[in-house]
Amino acid sequence: MIREIPVKKLKDKHFIQEKIAEIRDTVGGGTAINALSGGVDSSVVTLLGHRALGRRLRTVFIDNGLMRQGEPGRVKSLFAGLGVPVGIIDARGDFFRALRGITDPEEKREAITRTFYKNVFGKIVRQSGAKYLLQGTILTDVDETIAGIKRQHNVFEQLGIDPKKTFGYHILEPLIQLRKDGVRKVGRSLGLPAELFGRIPFPGPALSARVIGEATPERIRTVRLATVLVERALCRTRAFQYMAILHADRVTGMRANRRDFGQQIELRCWDSVDARKAKPTRLPYPVLEKLAKDITSQVPGVVSVTYNITAKPPSTMEAV
Amino acid sequence: MIREIPVKKLKDKHFIQEKIAEIRDTVGGGTAINALSGGVDSSVVTLLGHRALGRRLRTVFIDNGLMRQGEPGRVKSLFAGLGVPVGIIDARGDFFRALRGITDPEEKREAITRTFYKNVFGKIVRQSGAKYLLQGTILTDVDETIAGIKRQHNVFEQLGIDPKKTFGYHILEPLIQLRKDGVRKVGRSLGLPAELFGRIPFPGPALSARVIGEATPERIRTVRLATVLVERALCRTRAFQYMAILHADRVTGMRANRRDFGQQIELRCWDSVDARKAKPTRLPYPVLEKLAKDITSQVPGVVSVTYNITAKPPSTMEAV
Repeated sequence: MIREIPVKKLKDKHFIQEKIAEIRDTVGGGTAINALSGGVDSSVVTLLGHRALGRRLRTVFIDNGLMRQGEPGRVKSLFAGLGVPVGIIDARGDFFRALRGITDPEEKREAITRTFYKNVFGKIVRQSGAKYLLQGTILTDVDETIAGIKRQHNVFEQLGIDPKKTFGYHILEPLIQLRKDGVRKVGRSLGLPAELFGRIPFPGPALSARVIGEATPERIRTVRLATVLVERALCRTRAFQYMAILHADRVTGMRANRRDFGQQIELRCWDSVDARKAKPTRLPYPVLEKLAKDITSQVPGVVSVTYNITAKPPSTMEAV
Repeated sequence: MIREIPVKKLKDKHFIQEKIAEIRDTVGGGTAINALSGGVDSSVVTLLGHRALGRRLRTVFIDNGLMRQGEPGRVKSLFAGLGVPVGIIDARGDFFRALRGITDPEEKREAITRTFYKNVFGKIVRQSGAKYLLQGTILTDVDETIAGIKRQHNVFEQLGIDPKKTFGYHILEPLIQLRKDGVRKVGRSLGLPAELFGRIPFPGPALSARVIGEATPERIRTVRLATVLVERALCRTRAFQYMAILHADRVTGMRANRRDFGQQIELRCWDSVDARKAKPTRLPYPVLEKLAKDITSQVPGVVSVTYNITAKPPSTMEAV
């Protein structure tokens, strides 16, 4: 049983010192490695690990082809500014090969997990000689995995899987007692730039979780373009999270007075404190209408845009 | 080329007299038949035909299993109140058999057209001995069929199909010079009750046009239930049209803290004058949120509800 530290009781300075000490104690004179995705959780873990281990932590950014527009370069340069070197690994081919023909969301997550741990990151870890892996798992990931709502890619021990036996390394999860609000508090205290610690949550399987059905390079490009427009339009709303989802269903549309059987993008924008419950943000209609216009005119093949109006529960925040 | 009568120039009393005379002239001493769906167009045609021919017009309501909740009984009793007898034909089995396994929207329309004209209505017409068929085709149907946006089930001559040769009867289309606003004006003038002439447009293929993918009896039941809730919630908005659409895509939801891979309903509500262009109605969020809550709690299997925010064009009003 993991003991939760609620954000109100979280003494961030103390928490940071304790986690730095724990990481140092555990890793000892060895080396550790971590994969930075650019999300809040892995960014906070990277900085905690860097404070604890300095050059004995190797941080890599794995470009799986499923990231947001310009993400690898953006993350690398942000962390360079914090004195943390980040190595970018181009693994786009591996991931798209693994995803080919898969439409079931659990099988997609499974393919990404397998490719990430066994093929791409597993190889890097083995080559690096590191025996310790730092991960940004938070308590909500554990809850949702245990509840069977979704399978997070980074919750092994809770599922009875021994990562040392299975993958050859120990996993350290310094944020596992926190929820998203606690992680942000720690990030702020660590001095992460607002752009980083304040980022909206982004799922482990990245944009493959934002397409219903097969995650082909073309479909990922479509949802990536829509994501650029949504994030640009909604970044000032102070909403907890917002996203574009590409549907597999086709709907009838019109272009130049002709029928165009096209694609649909679903928008979601959530008000939430800790992701356990959430309500759709009451976005002003002019904002929604402009977004629909921008998406249908700038994203090839999209003729229709919807806005999700269901609370969580019974909805979840992500669609797949 | 059909000459449009714009609503501003429509002299409704004169138009009605003219059409009654035309119908009488064409049908002569023979008999005519028409299929009433309960929509505005076929209701107006039924009353025009009844004024012109009296008992020499036979009006049938074909229950294809794709109608809204309680529709056959409601239509029959409304027209009984107007002195027009309506015969109800139970053809649910014929239509669901024809729709089995079909997911493409054009093939669905095609299956319904074929079943309607060749099997069900065709048989009734042949048995009745009537050589004249009254239909509620309006100019927008013709435009959209010619433009290739959709195939209306009642536009034959414009497509070069001779209904006499193909189906064995003549088709009379007294409303073909009007658009929806003109039809409403004529309906009002004919003394149709507000509930009828003011009805929102409903598609020819009925609820099968409101499911993306296969129109099984179970999926039709799902979208029918959602339609009851949507029409109840939005009937006072004065919107041009509103609808619930059942998607084939599955999305993740939660029920009693467990994952529930469920169905999604898309809502559309349109502001429009004549259906050629339309904008999503700016419905108040409390209305949308209550609808989402009612649908997810009262319609089995539905975990998510969206609202369409795209204008027509590039969207169309119906999804399939």
